Amino acid sequence: MKLPRTHTLKEISKLIDSEFVGDENFAILGINEIHVVENGDIVFVDHPKYYDKALASAASVVLINKEVACPEGKALLVSNDPFRDFCKLAAYFKPFQTSDKSISDSSKIGENTIIQPNVFIGNHVSIGHNCIIHPNVVIYDGCVIGDNVIIHAGTILGADAFYYKNRPKGYDRLISCGNIRIEDNVEIGAGCTIDRGVTGITTIKEGTKIDNQVQIAHDTIIGKKCLIAAHVAIAGCTVLEDEVTIWGQVGISSGITIGKKAVVNAQSGVGRDLEGGKSYFGSPCDDARKKYRELAAIKVLPEIISKVNNI
Amino acid sequence: MKLPRTHTLKEISKLIDSEFVGDENFAILGINEIHVVENGDIVFVDHPKYYDKALASAASVVLINKEVACPEGKALLVSNDPFRDFCKLAAYFKPFQTSDKSISDSSKIGENTIIQPNVFIGNHVSIGHNCIIHPNVVIYDGCVIGDNVIIHAGTILGADAFYYKNRPKGYDRLISCGNIRIEDNVEIGAGCTIDRGVTGITTIKEGTKIDNQVQIAHDTIIGKKCLIAAHVAIAGCTVLEDEVTIWGQVGISSGITIGKKAVVNAQSGVGRDLEGGKSYFGSPCDDARKKYRELAAIKVLPEIISKVNNI
Amino acid sequence: MKLPRTHTLKEISKLIDSEFVGDENFAILGINEIHVVENGDIVFVDHPKYYDKALASAASVVLINKEVACPEGKALLVSNDPFRDFCKLAAYFKPFQTSDKSISDSSKIGENTIIQPNVFIGNHVSIGHNCIIHPNVVIYDGCVIGDNVIIHAGTILGADAFYYKNRPKGYDRLISCGNIRIEDNVEIGAGCTIDRGVTGITTIKEGTKIDNQVQIAHDTIIGKKCLIAAHVAIAGCTVLEDEVTIWGQVGISSGITIGKKAVVNAQSGVGRDLEGGKSYFGSPCDDARKKYRELAAIKVLPEIISKVNNI
Repeated sequence: MKLPRTHTLKEISKLIDSEFVGDENFAILGINEIHVVENGDIVFVDHPKYYDKALASAASVVLINKEVACPEGKALLVSNDPFRDFCKLAAYFKPFQTSDKSISDSSKIGENTIIQPNVFIGNHVSIGHNCIIHPNVVIYDGCVIGDNVIIHAGTILGADAFYYKNRPKGYDRLISCGNIRIEDNVEIGAGCTIDRGVTGITTIKEGTKIDNQVQIAHDTIIGKKCLIAAHVAIAGCTVLEDEVTIWGQVGISSGITIGKKAVVNAQSGVGRDLEGGKSYFGSPCDDARKKYRELAAIKVLPEIISKVNNI
Repeated sequence: MKLPRTHTLKEISKLIDSEFVGDENFAILGINEIHVVENGDIVFVDHPKYYDKALASAASVVLINKEVACPEGKALLVSNDPFRDFCKLAAYFKPFQTSDKSISDSSKIGENTIIQPNVFIGNHVSIGHNCIIHPNVVIYDGCVIGDNVIIHAGTILGADAFYYKNRPKGYDRLISCGNIRIEDNVEIGAGCTIDRGVTGITTIKEGTKIDNQVQIAHDTIIGKKCLIAAHVAIAGCTVLEDEVTIWGQVGISSGITIGKKAVVNAQSGVGRDLEGGKSYFGSPCDDARKKYRELAAIKVLPEIISKVNNI
Repeated sequence: MKLPRTHTLKEISKLIDSEFVGDENFAILGINEIHVVENGDIVFVDHPKYYDKALASAASVVLINKEVACPEGKALLVSNDPFRDFCKLAAYFKPFQTSDKSISDSSKIGENTIIQPNVFIGNHVSIGHNCIIHPNVVIYDGCVIGDNVIIHAGTILGADAFYYKNRPKGYDRLISCGNIRIEDNVEIGAGCTIDRGVTGITTIKEGTKIDNQVQIAHDTIIGKKCLIAAHVAIAGCTVLEDEVTIWGQVGISSGITIGKKAVVNAQSGVGRDLEGGKSYFGSPCDDARKKYRELAAIKVLPEIISKVNNI
């Protein structure tokens, strides 16, 4: 998330009541989670195992729970609880706003766009031209939707990320301050859920078509002209390149990349990066032909076992 | 879909600006996709691989992209883009109608039927007697629901089929002009999605019970007294005969038939026709006992491999 | 379910027009299904196979379809259709009430709780303090929700159990008279469905976090501080002890127990009790390391088969 205006290191340190290392006028442009952090951003880290990754990331400011050597050209915010303080910043810059009517006055709806009954459109939502938003769709605050988009009934865009920190007393939710962008000519089926980014933008690119009851988690990027069949679940921070086809009930782990024109067959489970242009099957999935050979081999296995036991 | 009145070949050819082969007064009764086409209907075909199937089908008129020999007693509509022109006809005979209130004045609701708050009922929907429609259900235009039907909250009946043509510039949606029929004594859980037929009627027959978050795609026929557990996904144009039981999270491919009284165990994947009266398991599924023997064999596989490697 | 006041054996027998065995003033406190029956309750049984279990259960009164020897200190209700008569009692003590507005006047909503637009809150619902109920959530009659609970859009709490008796003419639904309890600090994602108990209380304990499109069936108990990822389906009468983690698209059968701190990996199927503190994988699932060894063995299986065939 970019801040509404540039803030100084000193201003931010005051907001979260922390120490800082660096020039008090050091410019801060945004706050972002490690997967989507950019130059000018604050990132947070609270486990020594990940210190190096955070310090070497694109982040300009590292919100950290130990005073370490500050890399050249960067700054530190030193806090006894970086997770809590990151949430404090997210809540400060993107406070939760209630809605007292189904369609917020601050939303912007394009020409010839049809909004059917019982739809909820949150604050500062933007919807393009020639869209159809079917009944009982929910679009949370700040979502951005392009032109010629169709969203079928009961679909939910922009709920919070499922992202928690395990504390002795219970799980603490990372406050989601990210967003959603649905590009032109995307069509989304009924009963889908697409979560907002934790700090980044969950994105469905131009021309992608999504069937019913699909789940897409925070900060995931779906490429152009992808096809996603019913009951697929895609975890957070994953990237589908363009023209990927995912068949029904496939599950995809977080933080991986599926290459251009890959095809993942029904009920597969994807736990690692997949090369583009190939077909995959199985849970965990593998090259489809290889997997089919294994399945054929399993069919003769009881017979092979008798054979071996008789040797 | 049957047309509201019989049209002549000439009338239809004018609507889509195409050539025709046959008597200009040839009578046309409906338009239908190849899986559900009937006598008197137009069907479309645009790939030489499927010409013979379309020409030999029950269709009386074939909307085709090449002038071929016309079978006896039939007619042709010759177009450079049969898919586009089929959609043109679908949109002409079933234009999308917006709704300005949650329950359309043109809907028909039977005696003693309870409609809870926040329900959407589209145009020309028909609901029988003694039904309960729980909150936030969405019933799209034209759906037909029998007597003593219970539909739990958040279920969506009649969204468009997930059926696209791959074009160089993007996927084109086949306009759904089909419908949904829910017969008497059917009960549907919460958060389900049942799509309308592309041109036919997605049908849930008498006495079938469906659990939560089930997905049933376009033109699929579910028989009488079936049981379908939570999170099942059934693709389009599939037939479940009577008294079939489908346990949780099963996936079923398109265009197949599952025989009477078959039982498909949880998390199975069905990719081919299944004979009735038997029990199935696995992804892809097989006879359940056979599959359990394979699973038992896999458990001893590591040991067998050591044995073989020591020979 | 506890009755609103103590009833005598004679009163109940009149309500369902049945015979009874025992003192006519025998006190009855509740009605409950066999999984959750307590002292003072009526339980029903209609198959000789289960007579002993019902008679030996905690139930004080057994609604049964044959006059058997009555255990010491208990009573019998003898009916030709115990299932029908149990439903009659459920419907008598918990009649279905319609709602004519989205938020019932008989519901109780705590301080600082935010109810977003298009939410349905049924009769006698209780919601604690500092909750956020996002748009288009449905909370059926009588559900009880604690403090600091977040429920994301489109989630459905309290639909009926998927629990039927197979009759020659069709399936008869067991009338659900149970309830739901969501404890403090629980967070539930978008598009989830959590069913009420048949007679007991489906319970989500303190601090548990649930992702999107999760299905939890009737009478299931989810422990404290559990994590449940997207598209998980948990059947009825199952118990998850505290701090259990269930990853995406896992399916869990009815009536089983998953021990404290167990971890079930994505797409697994759980069909039996699982010991706590361990990690599981596969469908049907097993100890994760064992399962990974099997998967590794399958990869070399085609090669092993050639080897065996060449011996």
